[in-house]
Order: sequence, then structure tokens, then C-alpha cells
Amino acid sequence: MKVVSTSKSHGGVQGVYSHASEVCACDMTFAVFVPPQAKDGPVPVLWYLSGLTCTHANVMDKGEYRRVAAELGIVIVCPDTSPRGSDIPDEKDNWQFGCGAGFYLDATQEPYARNYRMYTYVTAELPALVAANFDVDMSRQSIFGHSMGGHGALTIALKNPERFKSCSAFAPITQPSTAGWSRPALEKYLGSDEKSWRPYDATLLIEDGCRFDAFLVDQGTADGFLQDGLRPWLLDEACKKAGIELALRMQEGYDHSYNFISTFMEDHLKWHSRHLA
Amino acid sequence: MKVVSTSKSHGGVQGVYSHASEVCACDMTFAVFVPPQAKDGPVPVLWYLSGLTCTHANVMDKGEYRRVAAELGIVIVCPDTSPRGSDIPDEKDNWQFGCGAGFYLDATQEPYARNYRMYTYVTAELPALVAANFDVDMSRQSIFGHSMGGHGALTIALKNPERFKSCSAFAPITQPSTAGWSRPALEKYLGSDEKSWRPYDATLLIEDGCRFDAFLVDQGTADGFLQDGLRPWLLDEACKKAGIELALRMQEGYDHSYNFISTFMEDHLKWHSRHLA
Repeated sequence: MKVVSTSKSHGGVQGVYSHASEVCACDMTFAVFVPPQAKDGPVPVLWYLSGLTCTHANVMDKGEYRRVAAELGIVIVCPDTSPRGSDIPDEKDNWQFGCGAGFYLDATQEPYARNYRMYTYVTAELPALVAANFDVDMSRQSIFGHSMGGHGALTIALKNPERFKSCSAFAPITQPSTAGWSRPALEKYLGSDEKSWRPYDATLLIEDGCRFDAFLVDQGTADGFLQDGLRPWLLDEACKKAGIELALRMQEGYDHSYNFISTFMEDHLKWHSRHLA
Repeated sequence: MKVVSTSKSHGGVQGVYSHASEVCACDMTFAVFVPPQAKDGPVPVLWYLSGLTCTHANVMDKGEYRRVAAELGIVIVCPDTSPRGSDIPDEKDNWQFGCGAGFYLDATQEPYARNYRMYTYVTAELPALVAANFDVDMSRQSIFGHSMGGHGALTIALKNPERFKSCSAFAPITQPSTAGWSRPALEKYLGSDEKSWRPYDATLLIEDGCRFDAFLVDQGTADGFLQDGLRPWLLDEACKKAGIELALRMQEGYDHSYNFISTFMEDHLKWHSRHLA
């Protein structure tokens, strides 16, 4: 693991690190905020998964999580959203596929299967690296994210309910296999047999029997992707049918940007902190 | 005035606006955060001046001022740091001069005198525009900034003590006329007669009789520009000699970045709010 940069913030340290990822077969960069409490022993870990077009840096710059994470004593880890590099297959003019759009799945189709393995990366390789290099209590983990990353958090929590104490999302995609902006990506990564998409679709995972104790979801009513891309009512229906507790909060007038995320960041961190306690 | 974008944040509105500036003879862009309290009548205004290389966007993205400004009911205005555009004289490979480095002065030398008039822009043209377009109480104004912009705030407050209720700075340049990274800019903007630089040098303004009630300055001890560029002890000496109250706080381990600024943003906003009350 290489230290790219560290900077003191709110009494803790905001760092950026890189490493040669075996899973993604390329160098990967990620951000870690370590709160001041880490000096006194292992602290819990909260994973933040970002949305389409983002790197590790967007939420680090604009998410405003450090003040509250420093108060609550939580490590925040922010992975990238895809493999990157000059030899990584990509569609440079398509922001909904390839670099910046890994969808937190393990691709099975060529030429993507070798690098686009973000599910294994964020659930296995990166956690092992974080556990080895930071003083974290891996028995206390939670996960959240935004948009594509909010959906990533939901699916990863549903498939690993024993690992995560809580899961929340800002404006998550809820059913990527039926949304116009994500169907083409699923097909290119996973092939045309839609059965293979179900393990990477939050509402279909619930339909197929996956369960999680409780979700918190914030969604802005002025979000331009609400009606076609995000559709939180699909998650609401799926959770109601399955008996999963979902606090879905429609936030009047908020859009899809980090102005929305940063407004409700404190709520989410406090909610996770209660579950991590 | 043209609305570039607006986005709800912390119950208020973060907007970006542009206008044809007569003073700078080009289009200028600025950011304004309007807190929710503005619905009930005029609110005070706090001006934030950014540092070298920045636009209006850096502090808007990374300064983390909205939560506290929304709580305290303060409008935050963030101007650009220089004129910009394809027909603006610039030195593209020099980050300490030209675009992004207006130093909040009115240039007298050609070819800069026509556009580089940031002092008049931020003290006259932009305030008039803000007063005409936002529900602000212009009898309650304060000013702060970072680095070059922290210095801009100090000089503008010293020259307009009747206008500003308070002035603070993050890691300000304190004596640009003797610092290596700013001397060449002053010479190019103002000519080789160093007497003409004195009205744009905070410690020399104090030497020349300008006064202000009280300053708050935070400075990180791990700031790479501390020893050669910033030198807060020069401001400290000048203030002590002049009987100006200066709260100079050396912040252990903090660097020059927005991680430092955002850590102490709440302190500064609360300090200004007490003076604006």
C-alpha cells in the first residue's frame, strides 16, 4: 500500500492510498479517514460507495463526513468506482459504463471480466488491505453510498447481512436491471441472460430471499434521476413485502448532488454509529 | 445577473451566478449561499476571498460552510480570484500571477490595468450586485478568506473598518511585498515603485495607520508556506505595535488545504456571527 497523501482534518487524518489490486489487475486508489479516537484502539469502519463518474475523491472533497466521523470515532473508507488505467477496457464517451461505472459487480463477459470485479474488490481485497494497515475493528462494519454506490451498499448488505451492522443510501438506484441507464451496463458486464443480473439488483435480491435488518434511505424530490433511474418506491414495495424495515425519507427540494448528500451526512453517520455501538 | 445553478443545501440555497463585470471588463462568476432565515427578511453577509489558483468553486465545494451558515442565518458570498477569459492577459504557466492570482488589488500597469481590478470589484461592483439581487442587510457585513484571500480580507477590512463588523483569515499572507511568491505579482500589477504596493500589504497598512478592531487568524503548523510565504508573526508584531487585537491561533499539524479550512470553518462563522449580531 502506497501513501498518496495525508492531511490532518478535524483532529483525525484524511489519507489517500493506492495499491496494486490483484482482483482488478490494476492499481487502485482509495481514501480513508481515521478519526482521533483510533489512537486509543480499534475503531469501527463505515464503507462509502460512490456513484457514476466518481472516484474516491468526490465524497472526500464534498461529502462533509469528517467532522461527524471525528466526533463519533468512525473510520470512513471510500473506494474508487471502477478499475482505471490506460489498459483497462472502457467506453470513454459513455458515463454509464466502464471507468467510473463499475456497478460493484464481478463482470463475467470479455473484455471486462479480467478487471471489472468491483464486488470482490470492495467485499474482499480492500477490506483485507484496510484491516492489515489501519487499526480498525472489523467486527463492527457498516456500509452506505450514493446512487450507483447506494445501490452497491444495498446489494452488498443484503448478501452479507452478518458482516454489516447497518446500511443506508442517498438516492440509490433500486432496480438497475429495469432502468434505462443501467440495463446496458449489466448486459455488457454480465451477458444477456438476465437471471445472472439478479444477484446485482437490490429489489430482485429481496425477491429472491435476501434479508437485512433495516435500511435508511434519503431521496431528494428535485432529483432529476428520481422518476426513471432511481425509483425508491420499488425498494419500498420490495421491503414491505419482505418485512424489511425501510426508513425512506423523501427530502423536499433536494437534488442528486453533494449538496444533498452533505446535508444529510450527519444523520446517516449518527444512524450508523448507533448500530455500530 | 445570470443564474448558473442553484441547489438546495442545509435548508438554504447554494447558487452560482455570473454577470458582465464593468470593473473587470469580462464576465465574472461568483457563488452565494442563502440560508433559510432569508425567507423572513434581510440577513447579514459574510464575504469569503479565496487563495491562489482558486475560483469561486473551491470553498463552495470543500469549505463546509453551509451547515453552520444555515444555522446562524448568514449569506456567504464567494467571488472569483481574478478576471478570466480568453482575452484576459495571463501567464498560463505561472500560478502566482494572472488568472487565479488577482491579489484583490487594482492594477495600474499595462496590460493588466484594464481587467485586474479585483479591489474595486469585491468592494464596490459585486456588493452592489449582491445588494440588488439578494435579501441582504448590507449594514451587517464581515469578511474572511484563505491565504491570498485571507490577506485580501485583512487589507480590505483595514481600509474599510466602518463597513465590516469583523475580519478573520485562514493562513493569510501577511506581508506580500516582501514574500518571494507575491513580490513579482505586485511589481507586474503595480509597477516597480514599492510605495504603490503599501495599500495592498496588510502589515504595511497597519504601519501606515490603518486600524481594525480585532482579527482572528488560524494558521496550521504543518503548512508548507508558513516560513517563507505566510509568516503570521509579521502580522502579530504589527498588530501588537498598533494595539490591534489579534487572536493568532497556531493549529498543530494542520496544512494549507481545505482540510484545515473546513476544520476551523465553524469557529470562524460563529465568531463572525457574534460580531454581526
